[in-house]
Amino acid sequence: MIAVIIVSHSEKVAEGVKDIAEQMNNSKIMIRAAGGTENGRIGTNTLKIYETFEEVKNADNILVFVDLGSSIMATEMAMDMLDDEIREKITIVDAPIVEGALGAVIQATVTDNVKNIIETAIESKSLSKLQE
Amino acid sequence: MIAVIIVSHSEKVAEGVKDIAEQMNNSKIMIRAAGGTENGRIGTNTLKIYETFEEVKNADNILVFVDLGSSIMATEMAMDMLDDEIREKITIVDAPIVEGALGAVIQATVTDNVKNIIETAIESKSLSKLQE
Repeated sequence: MIAVIIVSHSEKVAEGVKDIAEQMNNSKIMIRAAGGTENGRIGTNTLKIYETFEEVKNADNILVFVDLGSSIMATEMAMDMLDDEIREKITIVDAPIVEGALGAVIQATVTDNVKNIIETAIESKSLSKLQE
Repeated sequence: MIAVIIVSHSEKVAEGVKDIAEQMNNSKIMIRAAGGTENGRIGTNTLKIYETFEEVKNADNILVFVDLGSSIMATEMAMDMLDDEIREKITIVDAPIVEGALGAVIQATVTDNVKNIIETAIESKSLSKLQE
């Protein structure tokens, strides 16, 4: 089973991406939002991210989508608090937070191949939204 | 003056991106959220997008950031309802909705050159979030 975690500086962004992604979910993917500070302000919260990792620790693979660079720092600090066996399941995916997470969820409904799911998310960077 | 409009299928995503972007705003940029359906569900709302365009019609340039393809359709339908002189100010930017909008806002705080602002937003597609 795949888990997808959305780490945004905004709680609303993280929850909103989860809401859209859940519409595409075949209920096999664990999707979690970890956005904002502990009091819902703009920023990140290492403890919230850590607790989210603990929630999905039984997944085979855990894919993290982030917005800004400091989300990566907070994610890595949360990863440092985890047992090795959980940490090894985690990939921070180098993709846009919305488009990448949605691409990963859609792909995870059709394959269990995590490399392929990650590639699909990264490819979302080069897709054009505008059809001429 | 530049206006930035966030058109997402999720009201929370659109408002959350606005919240983050406002932290970077030097109060010269008009940032507006136009996400979700009229009752706050996942989807888009042409009328809400149209009304948002009307709100920022005095901007010199209006940049729109979208999540999924159908956001573009809704945006184009809203544009069809506008007077030519407003419509001509609008660019739907081919960039990730979060990273592109934030990149545009940051760049708009340092330049009024709209071509340069759009290029910066599009370049956010190729930026890596992970520093090795």
